[in-house]
Amino acid sequence: MPALPPGYSIRRLEAKDYEGVVETLKVLTVVGDVTKSQFEELVKYWNDTTLHIGVHSLPVYNPHVVVDETGRVVATGTVFIERKIIRGCGLVGHVEDIAVAEDQQGTQLGLLLIQHLTKLAHDRGCYKVILDCDQKNVGFYEKCGYRRCGVEMDHRL
Amino acid sequence: MPALPPGYSIRRLEAKDYEGVVETLKVLTVVGDVTKSQFEELVKYWNDTTLHIGVHSLPVYNPHVVVDETGRVVATGTVFIERKIIRGCGLVGHVEDIAVAEDQQGTQLGLLLIQHLTKLAHDRGCYKVILDCDQKNVGFYEKCGYRRCGVEMDHRL
Ligand SMILES: CC(C)(COP(=O)(O)OP(=O)(O)OC[C@H]1O[C@@H](n2cnc3c(N)ncnc32)[C@H](O)[C@@H]1OP(=O)(O)O)[C@@H](O)C(=O)NCCC(=O)NCCS
Ligand SMILES: CC(C)(COP(=O)(O)OP(=O)(O)OC[C@H]1O[C@@H](n2cnc3c(N)ncnc32)[C@H](O)[C@@H]1OP(=O)(O)O)[C@@H](O)C(=O)NCCC(=O)NCCS
Repeated sequence: MPALPPGYSIRRLEAKDYEGVVETLKVLTVVGDVTKSQFEELVKYWNDTTLHIGVHSLPVYNPHVVVDETGRVVATGTVFIERKIIRGCGLVGHVEDIAVAEDQQGTQLGLLLIQHLTKLAHDRGCYKVILDCDQKNVGFYEKCGYRRCGVEMDHRL
Repeated sequence: MPALPPGYSIRRLEAKDYEGVVETLKVLTVVGDVTKSQFEELVKYWNDTTLHIGVHSLPVYNPHVVVDETGRVVATGTVFIERKIIRGCGLVGHVEDIAVAEDQQGTQLGLLLIQHLTKLAHDRGCYKVILDCDQKNVGFYEKCGYRRCGVEMDHRL
């Protein structure tokens, strides 16, 4: 079982992570213009969005960062929780927007982040956790305990 | 451009649709034990969960039903809206839990429902709408204007 390098930690994303998160996500896709105040407003939305199951209140969005010993963001990713009818009003976790800084790829950070988010979703009661990925990353997610189960399709204007 | 049969309509799912929706979803997967009061609580949650973009407030969950001329539920499906950082704090629509009653399959209801949900998500500002499906349904979603873009993977305990 791999562990984070000494001094590294994994924690919920905070508003102060603006530069590090935006920079890290650029390895994944186009981030575009995101101002500090837009980011702060989004983090507030994520923090304020909760769901209630019986007496429990839990966050819908669970954005996380891995930070190194200097506090620099070196990886990021999130899992959000959907409430369905099927499977006895089941919960499903959706893992999204996983990115590891280029100079830290291949050092198990991606694996540790996915394991953390997956466990979080199951601990909150999700009967399954799903994600969509490029064909080229299937091997990575298999190492994280995921299996291929369907086809992702998209519609753009 | 196909249209709904005379007397049919498509509208947001309501608490009164309990029996029809639960019955319709059985063609898709295991629905399990869902009581009327659980269903009502879930519909309330879906109705109360909104997101705010500037001055606009919009529902996160958009569950819909197609009903026939007698008011019977003959198809159901939903799209929920996720707020991301990437793509300039972009919105993504997730189409989920599409089901057409067995005796009404092959009569364009699935296509009309998908078109409705997809347009709704784009109208609300989503830069893309995605869904996951079985390999055997790829052709159906292609007819709805979707294209294959990735692999769905899952993790179950
Ligand atoms: C894909 C990504 C998240 C993987 O994270 P990572 O920290 O580089 O990977 P790890 O070091 O945790 O890899 C864990 C294991 O998976 C393997 N692995 C990593 N990427 C792989 C790939 N694309 N295919 C097959 N195996 C892969 C590693 O070799 C390692 O195996 P090992 O334990 O036997 O040595 C990361 O490289 C990344 O951010 N890439 C660019 C953005 C991206 O593609 N995001 C995902 C979009 S779906
Ligand atoms: C799959 C499903 C949603 C399709 O809805 P439907 O109302 O039966 O399909 P439609 O009549 O709207 O079909 C529209 C077009 O897609 C085609 N089509 C339908 N199912 C198809 C399939 N599995 N593969 C290829 N094409 C298909 C139809 O022939 C039609 O083409 P046409 O306009 O050229 O005649 C529905 O059959 C269903 O609920 N099936 C069971 C549950 C399920 O599999 N849900 C989806 C999980 S991913």
